[in-house]
Amino acid sequence: MKIYDRPGFPNPSRIRMILAQKGLEDQIEFVGVDLVGAEHKQAPFLAMNPAGKIPVLELDDGTLISESTAITEYLDNLDGHPVLTGSTPREKAVIHMMQNRAEAELTGAVDGYFHYATPGLGSAMQPYVAPEWVGRKEWGERQRAKAIRAMTYFDGVLKNQPFVAGDAFSMADITVFAGLNFADAAGIAIPENATSLIAWRVRVSNLPSVKNRSGQDLLPEDLKRFGL
Amino acid sequence: MKIYDRPGFPNPSRIRMILAQKGLEDQIEFVGVDLVGAEHKQAPFLAMNPAGKIPVLELDDGTLISESTAITEYLDNLDGHPVLTGSTPREKAVIHMMQNRAEAELTGAVDGYFHYATPGLGSAMQPYVAPEWVGRKEWGERQRAKAIRAMTYFDGVLKNQPFVAGDAFSMADITVFAGLNFADAAGIAIPENATSLIAWRVRVSNLPSVKNRSGQDLLPEDLKRFGL
Repeated sequence: MKIYDRPGFPNPSRIRMILAQKGLEDQIEFVGVDLVGAEHKQAPFLAMNPAGKIPVLELDDGTLISESTAITEYLDNLDGHPVLTGSTPREKAVIHMMQNRAEAELTGAVDGYFHYATPGLGSAMQPYVAPEWVGRKEWGERQRAKAIRAMTYFDGVLKNQPFVAGDAFSMADITVFAGLNFADAAGIAIPENATSLIAWRVRVSNLPSVKNRSGQDLLPEDLKRFGL
Repeated sequence: MKIYDRPGFPNPSRIRMILAQKGLEDQIEFVGVDLVGAEHKQAPFLAMNPAGKIPVLELDDGTLISESTAITEYLDNLDGHPVLTGSTPREKAVIHMMQNRAEAELTGAVDGYFHYATPGLGSAMQPYVAPEWVGRKEWGERQRAKAIRAMTYFDGVLKNQPFVAGDAFSMADITVFAGLNFADAAGIAIPENATSLIAWRVRVSNLPSVKNRSGQDLLPEDLKRFGL
């Protein structure tokens, strides 16, 4: 299998955590996509994923899977023993509910703030993700407020249960974890009183599959192009 | 089981199709939510679903499931024979990919146009979904263009395969079908040259579970409040 992605970016980091959790990292050939250069917005990449987003999983039969939830369903079910997407109807439902909520309210909102209210990925990407427009900055700022509300919501959830979807670690934890890392990078701080979310984040960061996975950091050339 | 929804609205219609397809309609007690009066944006409903969206499924043990994909996973897996969400890892992945794509590119875009560029659900709802803001109308118009691009995309998909996720009817077909109905209601026409999408829509509309399901039409009081 091949995965088209870029180390250190939010959705690739979600799938790298899934791979580590499932012990599948060795079975993947990673193909780099130049995100800062907007390679994923050009025709060859769009032929693989018309939404112009990474990561994309290419199966050995040539099937192309995009969307992180879909890639996760594939990887988690491959050995017949799903541990991140639920086994029973109730588990599947609660995990997908929290996964959608994490994407819609947290990661999507951070993404909106990053691309609309900050320089985002820079000049090559700006025309694709956030065209000049009178309401641009205000839209981005509203996404920032939405992301902070989501952090408060997940803090409330984690006051009552150890993981985002209940008693077991799931793909929804990975999505919230990646969302908080993205928020750090975008300059959105977790509210100081979100103590349950902060404690959960420390616990998750110490899980072996999170601590030891590859592709957590931006490549040196990306750091340079971001001016970091 | 209980479902909190409102007949004739987009996401409730998706779940009603799922129920008809699975033969589960008789097992549900439907509880009406006054969407036009913004009941789903008030505290009692937000305690059930903090995202303030219908439908919500309440299981007999009190578990609350929101997000249409999550409700679909529950209902489709309940009898141990999923027919709408895939059986193999590859099927699950392709169906979830197309489901996410249909939500992000089509139904979400129609929703954005409806609420931001038209009067939407009217005065009670407007402050919740689309606050006054200098870029509001332009944002809505851009969502309209995005929805039309999605229609062209799905037309291309359906030139090469009978259903949205391949050879079999799935939840992704239901999402695209409900998205097109929503587009009709919002005044976004399918491009005339999208002949494969138009032919697929006729085929789907004639499926027994689509043709005979309940809750397809708005209630008389909602029609009246919309001035229809």
